[in-house]
Amino acid sequence: MKAVRVHDYHKPPLVDEVPEPTLTGPLDVIVKIGGAGVCRTDLHILEGQWAEAMNPELPYTIGHENAGWVHAIGEGVTNVAVGDTVILHPQPSCGLCLACRRGTDMQCTGDAFFPGLSNNDGGMAEYLRTSARACVKLDPATNPADVAALADAGITAYHAVRKAVPLLYPGTAAVVQGAGGLGHIGIQCLAALTATKIIVVDRNPEALELAKEIGADETVVADGSHIEAVKDLTGGNGGTVVFDFVAEQGAEYDAWQMTAPAGHDFIIGYGGEFRAPTLDFVGGEKNVIGNIVGTYNDLAELMVLAQAGKVTLHTRQYALEDAVQALDDLDHGRVRGRAILVP
Amino acid sequence: MKAVRVHDYHKPPLVDEVPEPTLTGPLDVIVKIGGAGVCRTDLHILEGQWAEAMNPELPYTIGHENAGWVHAIGEGVTNVAVGDTVILHPQPSCGLCLACRRGTDMQCTGDAFFPGLSNNDGGMAEYLRTSARACVKLDPATNPADVAALADAGITAYHAVRKAVPLLYPGTAAVVQGAGGLGHIGIQCLAALTATKIIVVDRNPEALELAKEIGADETVVADGSHIEAVKDLTGGNGGTVVFDFVAEQGAEYDAWQMTAPAGHDFIIGYGGEFRAPTLDFVGGEKNVIGNIVGTYNDLAELMVLAQAGKVTLHTRQYALEDAVQALDDLDHGRVRGRAILVP
Amino acid sequence: MKAVRVHDYHKPPLVDEVPEPTLTGPLDVIVKIGGAGVCRTDLHILEGQWAEAMNPELPYTIGHENAGWVHAIGEGVTNVAVGDTVILHPQPSCGLCLACRRGTDMQCTGDAFFPGLSNNDGGMAEYLRTSARACVKLDPATNPADVAALADAGITAYHAVRKAVPLLYPGTAAVVQGAGGLGHIGIQCLAALTATKIIVVDRNPEALELAKEIGADETVVADGSHIEAVKDLTGGNGGTVVFDFVAEQGAEYDAWQMTAPAGHDFIIGYGGEFRAPTLDFVGGEKNVIGNIVGTYNDLAELMVLAQAGKVTLHTRQYALEDAVQALDDLDHGRVRGRAILVP
Amino acid sequence: MKAVRVHDYHKPPLVDEVPEPTLTGPLDVIVKIGGAGVCRTDLHILEGQWAEAMNPELPYTIGHENAGWVHAIGEGVTNVAVGDTVILHPQPSCGLCLACRRGTDMQCTGDAFFPGLSNNDGGMAEYLRTSARACVKLDPATNPADVAALADAGITAYHAVRKAVPLLYPGTAAVVQGAGGLGHIGIQCLAALTATKIIVVDRNPEALELAKEIGADETVVADGSHIEAVKDLTGGNGGTVVFDFVAEQGAEYDAWQMTAPAGHDFIIGYGGEFRAPTLDFVGGEKNVIGNIVGTYNDLAELMVLAQAGKVTLHTRQYALEDAVQALDDLDHGRVRGRAILVP
Repeated sequence: MKAVRVHDYHKPPLVDEVPEPTLTGPLDVIVKIGGAGVCRTDLHILEGQWAEAMNPELPYTIGHENAGWVHAIGEGVTNVAVGDTVILHPQPSCGLCLACRRGTDMQCTGDAFFPGLSNNDGGMAEYLRTSARACVKLDPATNPADVAALADAGITAYHAVRKAVPLLYPGTAAVVQGAGGLGHIGIQCLAALTATKIIVVDRNPEALELAKEIGADETVVADGSHIEAVKDLTGGNGGTVVFDFVAEQGAEYDAWQMTAPAGHDFIIGYGGEFRAPTLDFVGGEKNVIGNIVGTYNDLAELMVLAQAGKVTLHTRQYALEDAVQALDDLDHGRVRGRAILVP
Repeated sequence: MKAVRVHDYHKPPLVDEVPEPTLTGPLDVIVKIGGAGVCRTDLHILEGQWAEAMNPELPYTIGHENAGWVHAIGEGVTNVAVGDTVILHPQPSCGLCLACRRGTDMQCTGDAFFPGLSNNDGGMAEYLRTSARACVKLDPATNPADVAALADAGITAYHAVRKAVPLLYPGTAAVVQGAGGLGHIGIQCLAALTATKIIVVDRNPEALELAKEIGADETVVADGSHIEAVKDLTGGNGGTVVFDFVAEQGAEYDAWQMTAPAGHDFIIGYGGEFRAPTLDFVGGEKNVIGNIVGTYNDLAELMVLAQAGKVTLHTRQYALEDAVQALDDLDHGRVRGRAILVP
Repeated sequence: MKAVRVHDYHKPPLVDEVPEPTLTGPLDVIVKIGGAGVCRTDLHILEGQWAEAMNPELPYTIGHENAGWVHAIGEGVTNVAVGDTVILHPQPSCGLCLACRRGTDMQCTGDAFFPGLSNNDGGMAEYLRTSARACVKLDPATNPADVAALADAGITAYHAVRKAVPLLYPGTAAVVQGAGGLGHIGIQCLAALTATKIIVVDRNPEALELAKEIGADETVVADGSHIEAVKDLTGGNGGTVVFDFVAEQGAEYDAWQMTAPAGHDFIIGYGGEFRAPTLDFVGGEKNVIGNIVGTYNDLAELMVLAQAGKVTLHTRQYALEDAVQALDDLDHGRVRGRAILVP
Repeated sequence: MKAVRVHDYHKPPLVDEVPEPTLTGPLDVIVKIGGAGVCRTDLHILEGQWAEAMNPELPYTIGHENAGWVHAIGEGVTNVAVGDTVILHPQPSCGLCLACRRGTDMQCTGDAFFPGLSNNDGGMAEYLRTSARACVKLDPATNPADVAALADAGITAYHAVRKAVPLLYPGTAAVVQGAGGLGHIGIQCLAALTATKIIVVDRNPEALELAKEIGADETVVADGSHIEAVKDLTGGNGGTVVFDFVAEQGAEYDAWQMTAPAGHDFIIGYGGEFRAPTLDFVGGEKNVIGNIVGTYNDLAELMVLAQAGKVTLHTRQYALEDAVQALDDLDHGRVRGRAILVP
């Protein structure tokens, strides 16, 4: 089969002919890929930024936003059958540690892995080996290519919003910093799950235009006056919750400044450094909340929203063979929404 | 091996010679039993009360409170190894449905089973087949016979108390109705996990005496004046939470009467019928909370308390061959604490 | 001024000429009434059903759903000023007991009162005496007559829905039993605050028609087959939360039958008797949740929804002098939505 | 009466003869002081550190940890009567804003004040003017001097622990960094409210000795190897919750390093700067939680613990006239526990 493999960091990947994956354990599932999202993390992988942390043996196949159809299952698999349409949680987890048993899969302390990022082949290929614990069954009518990007970008935005729901009752304000791929999903999730006032901050007026169409109540151009603008829109307080999808290049300070007393600054993006006097935490009783991808159930719930039309994605499809082009388009800002490889 | 099997309802079980269980699936675990608790539910099984609901094929082996040592494991088992000391959650769950993924195992909608109660052999035997998902690993020094009863009676009491912890801050009062096996564990859990005022109600002054030793702040004899007595001890309000370990023969009405405005009546026992005007729920904003056994993590947490000496059990050991005697002793009120069969 | 006063139970009230109320304490507020809702509870008062519980001295003025403009304030009042447009929480609370300090006003153990129901004159009059703690300030452009009914019917429905929000994530189902005044507000609140599937059950097909327009995903005629119909719409489970706005004449049993395992039956209506085997609470881990009116903050939050157009009320205005006609119309089912008296 | 007043920053206060305070509003309460705690914040006030933020008119009376007996009450006061023994919440709040109505007094957006810190005379005097909303009624047998320090140091430690209770189930670990006045109260609260493993970190071996006596399960000397030591005691993870009572001079970095994945770093002390890569929040889903004093109900609950003997304070009494000596002793580390001025 064809697979998009990294051979050397700082070089484009190659589309190789490789053997199809096979079942190796009782909970294994082989999925025929219907769509594989192209993510900024893939660019970071190619730049070698994840080499040390993940240490994959080269060459290996990338692709961690996957959906498709079940092709083969191990003898212990009871939740999906051959032929089922599925979207895949990016991190199959062990299912037996206390974190998995509590429902916090991403904190799995067992043998979790992350195909396409850890030392396991990913989904930019015709077939992928994953585990039963990663498979969320979909309406058979779903086109995997339409939803694949929800497997990582979507679940991450949903997870953060879901955690914030109890904080965002009527009369509160949510600030979304960064109206890119994740931000757009976050806005739709906020509109679907709360009646909070949604304020979106971004440098790009076009992104703000789209934000308005999908649920933003107010938009603010990040032009240096945005902290004041957000305070003006919130009676001087700032956001009850600030979702920082950027979290680098100074945005992380802005997010904290835009957070109301007793409010919560949700960090979802990364790259920068958070700094604040400890007095800020005491005087204002303000909080910083970490966020990592989402749980299996988060993905299942997000798919309910997606199949009800409450969260939609703008996508552009590429043939699997055109993976290098898709990565290049992403790198040069030529993709609106999400690029999806279709084998 | 030897096994205590039900051949006919309304007759004592027989201690039969049967083949040892073998591995049948990748997550199977065979446990060499070190101790099997004898529970009132076993008496109900013998009386045929569970026949219709569970429909087990006779003869079958009873025993659902089990601890021992891992004897053999299926190929997919990663959380325990042969030789490990383990206590067993009574209901192995599928691990793949949304309820399991959320951490609410007892609501498993997959292929959960309940050895010794459903159509599966239980632990009053030398060996038991269960699943990796039921095994909680213990300190190797633990004697399984000392803790086996925590597998069902213990987890049930712990689960209810654990759910109530956020309600039981200082200044509140918890009423424990029924100071038997479950009640005694509940009292110890309340003392370990909260600083609430613990009021214990029982007909038996001896049980109340023991209750005082293990954490009760106040005790009340259930002699007809107990509702008034509880109100007097709570400034006229009643309990913030009432744990009803009886829930039959009128105790279920008493529990509701002893529940404070905006309070919670936790039903844990069963057998009776709850009745109240709907106005009671509106005028007082009172609640009734259901409780079923507990989750895998509840059992793991309870074992932390047990191994720290914060929850202890009074037990009396019987040889496996003396199972009928143990059941008879239980039925005639001759067991203080919990009877444990040791193969 | 004019006031609608009960002189004798089982007789229509009279519209009397009485002195205007005056300030009697430092937190008192006199409100010029702009609208007073006519509620089924007013009919019950006239029938003497509240006589024993509340024991008001006759004659007294009824009316507990009030909005208007601040006319005079006591020396300790800091949250409103003369001229402010306000809606009034129905139960002024003491502000000093632990329940008030916790934010659960309705559980006030101090000197709370309920004008129009307890021994205090209500709002079917030109002026009403209440407390600073009852006043929620509104946009000055609001017409009090448009929102008055939210003060009691609205807050009650909102309070129940607000408590249920954490239970109603995507993939769950909420069942609304009773699509009358409270139910219609409840449906709108559910649509605004959650992405759950909203299933509405009522005997009246017309009420269901309206339910669909304001947010119901599914409607079910309560014709005897409705429990099965709800199960069919929920994969055989029933509602994750059932909001029982009826809770009498058998509806209270239906609500419990329609509640899913591990689900919550919210009782909001009253009049009937709840009955269930205690085993139901144990086997299914099901819960019954009481609900009483709502807190001050609930009302403030509901007004945010109302002023954003997310919750609207169908009302029919009557002159204060026509109070008897309005009560009679309500009693004979001639009012669609809510009757409002306007002085 | 006598009062300890700041006349100039950077100079010792003077014990002046001043007029007794009088009632000025309907919710005012005059308290005869029975004990006033001497706090490190008083030293900071004298150094002028709070001058800009609080801007009090000099001279003014300090003292914000107060208990005593009610001497006079305004006409709107219903919760205390003349002669009652009371401890005083340090920040009387308005009771009418949404924060007060929600139970989060410290976020009061009305006319809250902080006697002894804001521009209002404090309690190092014979009498103090405060508000009904600050008064927590005590058992008349209580000696105010024994509990006064709980009014600020105590409530602050309790508030943080109370918020963390749901996170600290059996099997978790709580790290207390800083075993001084607040830390000691925090340890006792943790022991009373949870069954978590309590690990205390401090530079001072004597403080650790005391920590063991009052509930610490493990103690670690902060000698540079303490981060590793904490990890060793927690299976390599770190604390589920870290209570940082220091939060300056590098301790704030240690606290973060000692926080487990998905854990919470509670900042209670202040003076330093928190810094961490945003990736830390994402990779580990770790959180930083702010904490400010506590609510009125926190103080009421803490007094339940204190009156049950579950939280005790080591105090050393000084005559009011010896205030300068007491401040000097505190400044030079000569006070073990808390210095209390007794008029």
